Amino acid sequence: MILCVCPSPALDVTYHVEHLVPGATVRVASVAERPGGKAVNVARVLHALGEPVLVVAPVGGDTGVQLRHGLGHLGLEARLVPDAVPTRRTVTVVETDGSATCLTEPALTRCWAELLEAVDASLPQAEVMVVGGRLPDGVPADALRTLVRLARDRGVPIVADTHGPALLEVLEAGCDVVKPNATELEGVTGDPDVGRAARDLCERYGAVVVVSRGSEGVLAVTPNGAWEARPGDVVTGNPTGAGDALVAALARALAHDPSAFDRPEHVLREAVALSVAAVRAPTAGDVELAHHDGALDLVTVTALDGVR
Amino acid sequence: MILCVCPSPALDVTYHVEHLVPGATVRVASVAERPGGKAVNVARVLHALGEPVLVVAPVGGDTGVQLRHGLGHLGLEARLVPDAVPTRRTVTVVETDGSATCLTEPALTRCWAELLEAVDASLPQAEVMVVGGRLPDGVPADALRTLVRLARDRGVPIVADTHGPALLEVLEAGCDVVKPNATELEGVTGDPDVGRAARDLCERYGAVVVVSRGSEGVLAVTPNGAWEARPGDVVTGNPTGAGDALVAALARALAHDPSAFDRPEHVLREAVALSVAAVRAPTAGDVELAHHDGALDLVTVTALDGVR
Repeated sequence: MILCVCPSPALDVTYHVEHLVPGATVRVASVAERPGGKAVNVARVLHALGEPVLVVAPVGGDTGVQLRHGLGHLGLEARLVPDAVPTRRTVTVVETDGSATCLTEPALTRCWAELLEAVDASLPQAEVMVVGGRLPDGVPADALRTLVRLARDRGVPIVADTHGPALLEVLEAGCDVVKPNATELEGVTGDPDVGRAARDLCERYGAVVVVSRGSEGVLAVTPNGAWEARPGDVVTGNPTGAGDALVAALARALAHDPSAFDRPEHVLREAVALSVAAVRAPTAGDVELAHHDGALDLVTVTALDGVR
Repeated sequence: MILCVCPSPALDVTYHVEHLVPGATVRVASVAERPGGKAVNVARVLHALGEPVLVVAPVGGDTGVQLRHGLGHLGLEARLVPDAVPTRRTVTVVETDGSATCLTEPALTRCWAELLEAVDASLPQAEVMVVGGRLPDGVPADALRTLVRLARDRGVPIVADTHGPALLEVLEAGCDVVKPNATELEGVTGDPDVGRAARDLCERYGAVVVVSRGSEGVLAVTPNGAWEARPGDVVTGNPTGAGDALVAALARALAHDPSAFDRPEHVLREAVALSVAAVRAPTAGDVELAHHDGALDLVTVTALDGVR
């Protein structure tokens, strides 16, 4: 099973409105609601692919009950840790012209120790651990380090989707694969050259660095080389969730073959195709598996000698 | 007890943000949450005044559970009718400059018949019935008429805060007191002259018409005459909830004395003072009782011969 650790899950609420006018009363035409948070979204994609997953997350308050119900409704296995703090919401207001405004409630937890225990109890059954999303307030300074080390100690590979100081922290603690986007990569390296920055991180920490580059696909640097994978087609749709699909593909590859990144062409092809399937899905954050196979054939993967 | 019927209650969520930028991701600095809907707000004011109240409202889904918890937390007695439709939310985004954007989810109910039964079962203990708020979708065309007639049949006076066709409907069904604002009054009469329009409604339906006029206080027309009541002082603060406080004062007066509107000077003075206490309260929708007594002395009530 793939263990998806979500330190700050959210109840994601989407409002469809005609036009968001600040200062006005805006009628919401329709409401959608589902469990969110990066690792939960990754778990949803993995589940859609038929992959066994376990979500570990804190839940609190009435919104926590909603999150629990939502996970059950999606059929996602979960080990939920009771939190004294209510689960946060995000409210995304989508206008008829497609523009989206996202209001994110603060993330706070008071059950970090219990969350670590739940992770530790789940690791013996895990083939991979995915860590995603922002770290909530209220956790110890070495929270991510401890989390990553738990998996290291059990020999479970770790895929992390995080940014800023947290990205460096998971790398220092021995994370196997990270997936920053170009901005996040520059944020931690100070280097605007994507290839050089990824190579730098890979060499410093021995990790696989897969950089998501939106419509241009991904650039991946491993200790064995560098590659880029491109969709090979113009992809239109909703980019929300493309990064989560990418992480899902990386984790899935590791779950099936711990040495998948020794020769990553296949993994990268799969990852980009799954991102395309996410962008083309009518609902943001879903993957449209019907689009996956077609996209797979079009992805081009190229070894980059210059970056090596 | 004062029976407060809320056909479309809401879970009112308030987000404090620095600046609401459409199209951006906006971090919410703090979240507040409480039960809302006009009749619930009126009940909260009455409860703060020590008045026994009973809220009757439909509740559904996980948000309904939140509403139920919220009412319990406020100490409000409630007879809640299970609804197949989840309780709606409103999200009010307040920026640091004080401007507020309100997103209102659609109101829908599937338990109107059961709601009427709950009202009917509560009426024998009621001294007054308050009906407030929008009517949800999913109710019969004669919904408000039936509701008002239930109270008429039991001899319980009715105070309604509604507008548009619903305002005319409650008046036709025999509502005793209505509280439109000037815009709502013009909306149903087509007459921009507040005094004349209120007199017109009063004569057509035999009801007391109390028109809320913001910082100018109220204008009231009864079969016995017309009065205006003014705060007598410049009132600054948050006008949210001033109308609910006004309705609470009108209902309370009727509960204590069924002939309170025969000589309404005292009622109107009390109503304007309570509105002032609402405007001056630090939290929108609360009343600051400390401000009430001082305001009471300053209110001026004048009989209007011209409107009579």
